[in-house]
Amino acid sequence: MPTQRYKLTLAYRGTAYHGWQEQVGYADTWKGDRTAPGAPTVQYALRMAMQDVLRHPVTVVGSSRTDAGVHAKGQVAHFDTPMLQIPPEGMRRAINAKLPGDILVKAIEPVPDTFDAIRSTVEKRYQYVIWNALDRPPFFGELVFHRWQTFDIPAMAAAAKYLEGTHDFASFAKPGHGRETTVRTVFECTVAQRGPRVVIGVRGSGFLWNMVRIIAGTLVDVGSGRLAADTIPQILAARDRSAAGPTSPPHGLYLQWIRFAAQSENSPRIDADERG
Amino acid sequence: MPTQRYKLTLAYRGTAYHGWQEQVGYADTWKGDRTAPGAPTVQYALRMAMQDVLRHPVTVVGSSRTDAGVHAKGQVAHFDTPMLQIPPEGMRRAINAKLPGDILVKAIEPVPDTFDAIRSTVEKRYQYVIWNALDRPPFFGELVFHRWQTFDIPAMAAAAKYLEGTHDFASFAKPGHGRETTVRTVFECTVAQRGPRVVIGVRGSGFLWNMVRIIAGTLVDVGSGRLAADTIPQILAARDRSAAGPTSPPHGLYLQWIRFAAQSENSPRIDADERG
Repeated sequence: MPTQRYKLTLAYRGTAYHGWQEQVGYADTWKGDRTAPGAPTVQYALRMAMQDVLRHPVTVVGSSRTDAGVHAKGQVAHFDTPMLQIPPEGMRRAINAKLPGDILVKAIEPVPDTFDAIRSTVEKRYQYVIWNALDRPPFFGELVFHRWQTFDIPAMAAAAKYLEGTHDFASFAKPGHGRETTVRTVFECTVAQRGPRVVIGVRGSGFLWNMVRIIAGTLVDVGSGRLAADTIPQILAARDRSAAGPTSPPHGLYLQWIRFAAQSENSPRIDADERG
Repeated sequence: MPTQRYKLTLAYRGTAYHGWQEQVGYADTWKGDRTAPGAPTVQYALRMAMQDVLRHPVTVVGSSRTDAGVHAKGQVAHFDTPMLQIPPEGMRRAINAKLPGDILVKAIEPVPDTFDAIRSTVEKRYQYVIWNALDRPPFFGELVFHRWQTFDIPAMAAAAKYLEGTHDFASFAKPGHGRETTVRTVFECTVAQRGPRVVIGVRGSGFLWNMVRIIAGTLVDVGSGRLAADTIPQILAARDRSAAGPTSPPHGLYLQWIRFAAQSENSPRIDADERG
């Protein structure tokens, strides 16, 4: 049966989930702690909701494996389904009706089979949100990272600038997660103050494990005076995790958006019945 | 021993608590469900933190008994403590360090013994926050009430105007909670749209049980066209709970601030050693 590929754009509050990635056999081992390994994941919750609506087994491929507690404003996934009668907006609402309130499907669009949520990615942007005020925010405790020290924002911005460009980011990566190279390109790294919020924005072609959280931890060290902005080049040169600052906690991190190669999007699929 | 009275201003996210009011013997019956009777209350969490800091049994008297799930930006309480050496700001920070992250003591001020969080109240303002958009908000699900229908805001504002003044609000009260009269004065009832948020503000001298939530549910009925704005006078005249709209859920409600009689505030206590 011919299938149609769809691109799904998602927002979720990561607090109640053990990250994006579905874990094998977790249903048998889960003990009720939603932040422990074996707890429900966003991918699992999404797959269950989609299978409820589509009435066939679904494989959901996500672009980013966000860690436990990390949020997303624009995670992207793809899935295939037999040529159905449900229009995308109807499918979107039906899936949202089955999903828990902390996960939202923002958009569903048909895409060519060449679209791949992982391989078609060309650019991603993350935000790290710090609540920089004497008092913690009682309403947003799980949505921002609270630091009470007064930050030197220009120093943080200067440090962020050093991270832009193509570098070996080994100092800004958690060891493990096998990958061939730790060289990545950061197109832009910015620090913006919006009232009590300090928002670190990092836009790049790809990211290493914990990279944005270690960048945030290092910029917090710069902002609070523990580290000089111009030491960033030495930290990069060290190619050693222990040279950079601490890993900031997951609850300040948001996957903001993902951009994909133009050729794999927006071109209507014409060869539907040639596959199968 | 002479004691000093303090006024405490608090903000809290009500999600994890069974309301403000401490319940007798709950520690023995609590089964782990934070929204069930017997679950921790804000008053209990506060008392425990204060006793940790002050090292003596404390009685905390709160101005408003907020229900389970209801939030506060400006709850007020009073307590007495022996004339201690801790300055108020030091006490505030020490108590905040002991409190869970979803409760914050915003201010502690010494007040005369004549100040009473309940009896000195002259005015309160509540907000009811509706997220009025097609899609639910995945990050704020427990902080706003989601309604996807497009609201007629001018109709809601017109209905709100009818509620201003001194009326018998029996139609807008949950039966029970013994009180002598259901006549209350609403100084102002407003409806404001801020992006996807529709905020109902109600300012009055006192409120009946569930009064703001029933007002919100009735205004939602008006906004979505189920009820005409000019039926509000008839609903008031009926003096019957079944005449008004449904009770909106607790998670959209915020106790915004409380104003107290001027003579009981801001006057330094001079007769410290004449009491006790």
